[in-house]
Amino acid sequence: MHFDEAFRSQLRDLLIWRRDVRHFRTDPLPVGAVERLIELACLAPSVGLSQPWRFVIVDDIARRRAVLDDFSACNLDALQSYSDERAAQYVKLKLAGLREAPCQLAIFADPTTEVGHGLGRRTMPDMLAYSVVAAICTLWLAARAQGIGMGWVSILAPAHINKILDVPDSWRLIGYFCIGYPQTEDERPELERAGWERRQLSEALILRR
Amino acid sequence: MHFDEAFRSQLRDLLIWRRDVRHFRTDPLPVGAVERLIELACLAPSVGLSQPWRFVIVDDIARRRAVLDDFSACNLDALQSYSDERAAQYVKLKLAGLREAPCQLAIFADPTTEVGHGLGRRTMPDMLAYSVVAAICTLWLAARAQGIGMGWVSILAPAHINKILDVPDSWRLIGYFCIGYPQTEDERPELERAGWERRQLSEALILRR
Repeated sequence: MHFDEAFRSQLRDLLIWRRDVRHFRTDPLPVGAVERLIELACLAPSVGLSQPWRFVIVDDIARRRAVLDDFSACNLDALQSYSDERAAQYVKLKLAGLREAPCQLAIFADPTTEVGHGLGRRTMPDMLAYSVVAAICTLWLAARAQGIGMGWVSILAPAHINKILDVPDSWRLIGYFCIGYPQTEDERPELERAGWERRQLSEALILRR
Repeated sequence: MHFDEAFRSQLRDLLIWRRDVRHFRTDPLPVGAVERLIELACLAPSVGLSQPWRFVIVDDIARRRAVLDDFSACNLDALQSYSDERAAQYVKLKLAGLREAPCQLAIFADPTTEVGHGLGRRTMPDMLAYSVVAAICTLWLAARAQGIGMGWVSILAPAHINKILDVPDSWRLIGYFCIGYPQTEDERPELERAGWERRQLSEALILRR
């Protein structure tokens, strides 16, 4: 298979424009859209073909409320860990779209799976979690190519989220995602626009051995 | 920005055709190709914009030899963990292209980084490693769009790899990668073709809550 320069250039545009979205419109996604994105996500690589990804679509209002409460508690705790100036900046950041996003999706790794027969994760057991991240990244790009935005929420207490969503304690929460159409678009990360942090030059991150 | 159906269809082709490559041609990549791929990888999302990815390009023959020896030892250990029938299957698998691939790249997470000011990783510290996986997945797709193949080697003793490559003990090895032009192409994962494991239907991996 051959991909031409036009495709590569558009892929680059997609990578530049992807964003972690926190400002969502409230209109719903097309019926079946998230399931089709999950199908694409399952094309991701996984260690030993273990496919350890588990997708939980969260629609129940009470469960969504409980997740939002957990986020609020964890976020307050995080705020209190910063000193004055950083705290003043932190409090202004919008770090999740949990109130507005029409679709919410929790993604877990199942460390108990026997699929893949343990191949490739004997010395690096976290490969199972990394495989799930590969599925998440695949879903993210596929969503963006359809104009759908995604935001990764990690300011949560993982064990509590398992309880709220009634999934096995053994599952490991990799991320909780808000999905929907973005209110705005921008080529720069939101944290950069807000003055929280800046992008670094890639050359500074390369060593030669 | 808008991506049309033609682009989305090609992106889907790329996801289907990506593969974890273990059979490489030995001809080198164009000069600067890996550095340009790393530049694209740095467009990946990272928690708090922490950009914790560290790329180590491994050219030194003695270090490559030491990595191959480490792989061989870990692989023998893995082989011995399987019972007769699985072991007979395992021993036939080619799990790395460490002898042939013209380019080798180790990718680490630096957990000591203060970039990002800790945002988003207080309750989920592994977000730092997950951010590095996001960079790896970005690099992988960008490489494939140029016809370049990549294989993820995880059958290694991480602490030993840090020593071999003379990087700080605090860095966490996320993956070691063989990169080069693939000998063959196939839409099916190599482990599926070899009868080791099969792809599952995505519907079976979705829960609703």
